[in-house]
Amino acid sequence: MPQQVAIESLSHDELVEAHANLSAQYADLVSTGLTLDLTRGKPAPEQLDLSNDLLSLPGGTDAKDGSGTDCRNYGGTAGLPELRAIFSELLSVPAPQLVAGNNASLEIMHDLVVFGLLHGTPDSERPWSAEPVVKFLAPSPGYDRHFAITESFGIEMIPVPLGADGPDMDVVRELVAADPAIKGIWTVPTYANPTGAVYSEEVTRALVEMPTAAPDFRIFWDNAYAVHTLVDEAPPAHDIVGMAAAAGNPNRPYVLASTSKITFAGAGVSFFGASAANVAWYQEHYSKKSIGPDKVNQLRHVRFFGDADGVRKHMAKHREILAPKFDKVLQILEARLGGTGVATWTTPEGGYFISLDVVPGTARRVVQLAKDAGIALTAAGSAFPYGRDPQDTNIRLAPSFPSLDDVAASMDGVATCALLAAVEARLTPDA
Amino acid sequence: MPQQVAIESLSHDELVEAHANLSAQYADLVSTGLTLDLTRGKPAPEQLDLSNDLLSLPGGTDAKDGSGTDCRNYGGTAGLPELRAIFSELLSVPAPQLVAGNNASLEIMHDLVVFGLLHGTPDSERPWSAEPVVKFLAPSPGYDRHFAITESFGIEMIPVPLGADGPDMDVVRELVAADPAIKGIWTVPTYANPTGAVYSEEVTRALVEMPTAAPDFRIFWDNAYAVHTLVDEAPPAHDIVGMAAAAGNPNRPYVLASTSKITFAGAGVSFFGASAANVAWYQEHYSKKSIGPDKVNQLRHVRFFGDADGVRKHMAKHREILAPKFDKVLQILEARLGGTGVATWTTPEGGYFISLDVVPGTARRVVQLAKDAGIALTAAGSAFPYGRDPQDTNIRLAPSFPSLDDVAASMDGVATCALLAAVEARLTPDA
Repeated sequence: MPQQVAIESLSHDELVEAHANLSAQYADLVSTGLTLDLTRGKPAPEQLDLSNDLLSLPGGTDAKDGSGTDCRNYGGTAGLPELRAIFSELLSVPAPQLVAGNNASLEIMHDLVVFGLLHGTPDSERPWSAEPVVKFLAPSPGYDRHFAITESFGIEMIPVPLGADGPDMDVVRELVAADPAIKGIWTVPTYANPTGAVYSEEVTRALVEMPTAAPDFRIFWDNAYAVHTLVDEAPPAHDIVGMAAAAGNPNRPYVLASTSKITFAGAGVSFFGASAANVAWYQEHYSKKSIGPDKVNQLRHVRFFGDADGVRKHMAKHREILAPKFDKVLQILEARLGGTGVATWTTPEGGYFISLDVVPGTARRVVQLAKDAGIALTAAGSAFPYGRDPQDTNIRLAPSFPSLDDVAASMDGVATCALLAAVEARLTPDA
Repeated sequence: MPQQVAIESLSHDELVEAHANLSAQYADLVSTGLTLDLTRGKPAPEQLDLSNDLLSLPGGTDAKDGSGTDCRNYGGTAGLPELRAIFSELLSVPAPQLVAGNNASLEIMHDLVVFGLLHGTPDSERPWSAEPVVKFLAPSPGYDRHFAITESFGIEMIPVPLGADGPDMDVVRELVAADPAIKGIWTVPTYANPTGAVYSEEVTRALVEMPTAAPDFRIFWDNAYAVHTLVDEAPPAHDIVGMAAAAGNPNRPYVLASTSKITFAGAGVSFFGASAANVAWYQEHYSKKSIGPDKVNQLRHVRFFGDADGVRKHMAKHREILAPKFDKVLQILEARLGGTGVATWTTPEGGYFISLDVVPGTARRVVQLAKDAGIALTAAGSAFPYGRDPQDTNIRLAPSFPSLDDVAASMDGVATCALLAAVEARLTPDA
């Protein structure tokens, strides 16, 4: 297949020839017997090594935090003040309104939905489970684990187009103004999963200011990649809690974050920030399920980071490992697919993913071809509510975990699959 | 007040004299300005010190478990196989049916109730939240945090008398046979909180065998103190999961436990054991809220314990610290209240509590008197659903946290308060 040539410009005979060539290339690929996994946004072992000091911390016999709390014992549902202070700065949430939790912010998000369903929020007329129907907006492509939470509870998801600076606010505004059943929106405001979108201040302000038919509408502001930059500096986190208060909708945003991709993916700490009323509400219900988070792990992180600048310096080390992998993906996509009209892709400045759009109608086929060649990709459609990509075009690429060589091998393979699927589709357009 | 003399035998004049003497004693007590806290079952610092090696574990750079899993990364919703094997032996649950979680078994119990409410169990006709009413049996006195979970969701609690070998099964059998709204029972089968009751094999068998009107009736088998013995050997954990399967009710028991009072109260690991179907159901819903528990903390515990015998040896060290405190409580209660008819109390062979029953109608007064003298006791009634002790007689004593001297000082104070309240009540019987 001649590279950098637009497939659309090929004659039928040229397409047949390209198909033969690509089929041979694909057969070679299969015969190499790869076993590569680009499915999930997992840190590489070298990234985890950056935090190995945690394995021996806090060390010794001193497990007291700065205020004298014995972190080994029960208590303290809000988490350690020192840890909250560090991430207050990074997440732009006042420390008194930011609580620190266990190893998964996903757990907090799940709890926030559960508490909404079973108790109702401070602004709800009744528990969400007592409503005839509950809906969430799902800017897409988005994070499959967000969508899985709402799907599991039968909450109806409405896809909304996601641009480079956030969701299409005209669509969002119209929907939430009209329908009181819409209780929330899932967002990843910084280096969004999977497109790398960064919510602008304008979009953020619009989200907290817009009139909503539901008095208890909530923005799940999952700032999972707030400091995960691939460039010199991450954009400052928007003070969405302050902006919401200024707009007269103080309880609208729920800010979430974790150190899963800062320290250890399975053994980090998580955060929840919101208005004082929301935090009090969350803590009231949280206190029924726990006497407090793992404070020793929080102390470990306090001693490891020192301060917010310690976190930023640590993230620079992650960037050194991650940036070459992202560069490699982009370089191979450009070399193999540039100018072919077969695909477009995002060039994120941070986060963990590149979003690849192949010829509409071929994403499933590309993922299947790759799988048969030993390259595991995230299931096609997974970045959309209910796993349904209406165009069958989107594939999430997660280059963080494999080695640089494996990233190169797998992306070369994915390019072959994308080209083959595109030529197949053109040869049998009605299939 | 003459000790070891039954208050009932005192004449009015003797009561008046006793009241004057006790009032003077109490005034002395108040003037000493104690600040003692016996409210919660918290391990003492010396007990936490026993596990200080955890503060530097797993150490070095090796964070792989025995099967080669990198514990620092995402994944593994069931927890580490080695840790599950250790507690499989101690809890008598097959390792494949035992999952290991984060730092709070309370969180798992809360989730089990939430999943029942929002999804229904594998045996439910509909989610519990779709039932007109849901009820739980609450053997009492019992654990206030259990009762708080069900109360928070509006689940109606029905108190059931708790004896030394478990709940009154005649009462339990009759209730569950008649009412399909009764979906569960809270239990603490070994060294129950607060009475120290140990469920007999006969009671355990009756619980899993009894006919229940609800097909989805669940036993919350919170074996929190399974290995927390104050005598030479803890009773072996009943194989309730196996017994339930043999009885044809495999999904009835939920086994819960944690290391909160084995290692660190805030930073231990938790367990959930049940039938394969229940565990699959739990994991399905759990996987929506977490990519997995903190495996590094689980690895830390594996390396710290080594094996089940390591846990037993560790518990023997706890006993050395705890047993003298329990002995001191019993000794002072006997010396001050024995023969007075003012109180009865339990003599537990393990666990964290002694249950003190004072003269009916005086528990609140005793707790208030103690509080005014600087001795904080668990709120009267807290061991009963909705905090309502129908007799106003029960006080939970938690002697683990204070030093031996403080235990002695506070128990002496409590005895004075109990006597004073008893004499007051006798002098003004109609108050």
